[in-house]
Amino acid sequence: MTDDHEYVSLVEVGPRDGLQFEDKVLCTQDKLDFIACVRRSGLRRIQVVSFVHPRRVPQMADAEQLVHSLSPSPEVEYSALVLNRTGLDRALSTPITCVEISVSASSTHSRRNTGMNRQEALAQATDMTVRARAAGLAVRASLQCAFGCVYEGSIDPRVVSEMAQALMDAGAQSLALADTTGMGHPESVRTVIAEVNKGIPSAQMALHLHDTLGFGLVNLVAGLDCGVRCFDVSCGGLGGCPFVPGAAGNIATEDTVYLLHALGYTTGVDWTGAAACTQKLEEVLGRRLPAKLRPGQKGVL
Amino acid sequence: MTDDHEYVSLVEVGPRDGLQFEDKVLCTQDKLDFIACVRRSGLRRIQVVSFVHPRRVPQMADAEQLVHSLSPSPEVEYSALVLNRTGLDRALSTPITCVEISVSASSTHSRRNTGMNRQEALAQATDMTVRARAAGLAVRASLQCAFGCVYEGSIDPRVVSEMAQALMDAGAQSLALADTTGMGHPESVRTVIAEVNKGIPSAQMALHLHDTLGFGLVNLVAGLDCGVRCFDVSCGGLGGCPFVPGAAGNIATEDTVYLLHALGYTTGVDWTGAAACTQKLEEVLGRRLPAKLRPGQKGVL
Repeated sequence: MTDDHEYVSLVEVGPRDGLQFEDKVLCTQDKLDFIACVRRSGLRRIQVVSFVHPRRVPQMADAEQLVHSLSPSPEVEYSALVLNRTGLDRALSTPITCVEISVSASSTHSRRNTGMNRQEALAQATDMTVRARAAGLAVRASLQCAFGCVYEGSIDPRVVSEMAQALMDAGAQSLALADTTGMGHPESVRTVIAEVNKGIPSAQMALHLHDTLGFGLVNLVAGLDCGVRCFDVSCGGLGGCPFVPGAAGNIATEDTVYLLHALGYTTGVDWTGAAACTQKLEEVLGRRLPAKLRPGQKGVL
Repeated sequence: MTDDHEYVSLVEVGPRDGLQFEDKVLCTQDKLDFIACVRRSGLRRIQVVSFVHPRRVPQMADAEQLVHSLSPSPEVEYSALVLNRTGLDRALSTPITCVEISVSASSTHSRRNTGMNRQEALAQATDMTVRARAAGLAVRASLQCAFGCVYEGSIDPRVVSEMAQALMDAGAQSLALADTTGMGHPESVRTVIAEVNKGIPSAQMALHLHDTLGFGLVNLVAGLDCGVRCFDVSCGGLGGCPFVPGAAGNIATEDTVYLLHALGYTTGVDWTGAAACTQKLEEVLGRRLPAKLRPGQKGVL
């Protein structure tokens, strides 16, 4: 237990990564209601959209409209995912102030998603980072498949580290290591972070974890042990990636918050509020989400 | 990662804790097939039955018949749960050589399950331990609700420790701390183990974890950090307790084995074999079990 109730920063990615591949396309107002609910639970960093082609991700077709409809607040950081130059152009046409520029550490995964190998995709991403920073945006870089890829297996941690360094050198202010396929385990988490840590302090790192093999929270604890203090979460554990067979949702906001508080950290988030968001989302989606903690949960201390 | 591939002992409790409260009562042959499948996956310690009144747990009505039908092997330790004197008498009438004598650390939980408060139940359990040992049985003591109780909330770790010591003093050779309601989290796991550790070395301890709040594997890692090297598991994460609202299954054998191997431990168990047991069990039960790893799972390293 930490003595000083150290703060852990959570980024709610449910509106983006969570909803991204849901079959049911939500109307903009339902998404705004979800985001408002998330804010009420205390989350202050919310990834709201991906500026991706609507043919690829129909759920994100209203990205501009959604960003324009948000009530700006100095207390809340809204961010958008951008995967290519067109996406960045679209982001720059909106009031969004923070973008995540994402590239895959696996060449096969990168080619399948973008048509570029990882070196080509990295070159584009560093250019985009320079341009986004020049335009006054805050930039978080992210590396997909940092802990393994269903096509390539393990990814060399030195490749992850070199790509991370290139993105930080280009001006990214923080770096998310993404376990896109949920293949990570505590040892690979520790190994990759240790390698990346040679150039980038853990205070600038975030972990984006998926619970595919049920190791999401175990990996979170491994990340905490390595000094990481920022994690992506999604209400209900919503999410997944259809381009990666078997990839499950993100670690659930409510379960993560409860665990972090039990471990003595503060988050500023009320897990029951997050669980209430999940409950509303389940009504909209018409299905139960994987989070374990429910509103009115018995057996919590 | 451990350098020497330290051994972790797993006890498969699926045939007992897992099946215990399934609505569908399996025929003895289906249970024997499940146990044989579990053996083939490399598990060498299997809790096969509970000698409990069949009105209370109809699934266990064939306990004697099942124990008599097992093929004994010097390589395999079969055990039975006994909760009272009648249960021990029944165990002694069979060839079973190992019993788990279990008592609740929560008086409310104990009274609801046994009609006795925890002191009365403890007195009975220590008597039973003496008698079982005198009859030549191996005895594992276990403490239910060691990490909290839905009726009482937190349980004083000193109460857990005193009860554990009384059972070991009576002749129990090992001690399982059971998170019956799945309320444990890494801090409570560490706190209770540290208290019990004052009298009982962690080498004699086991953890029996439920995944109610999704913290089963996080708690396993906390137990490993405290030196515990024995854990109860059930194929597929089968299990739960109807006397405890919301209590989910045990940690899944296949997921636990995969995680332990990723952490550098050996178990002697093949997770794909355990996952195959789960698949057969799902056919028999007609429902999907919570384990994450499936036979042919993509994205494993």
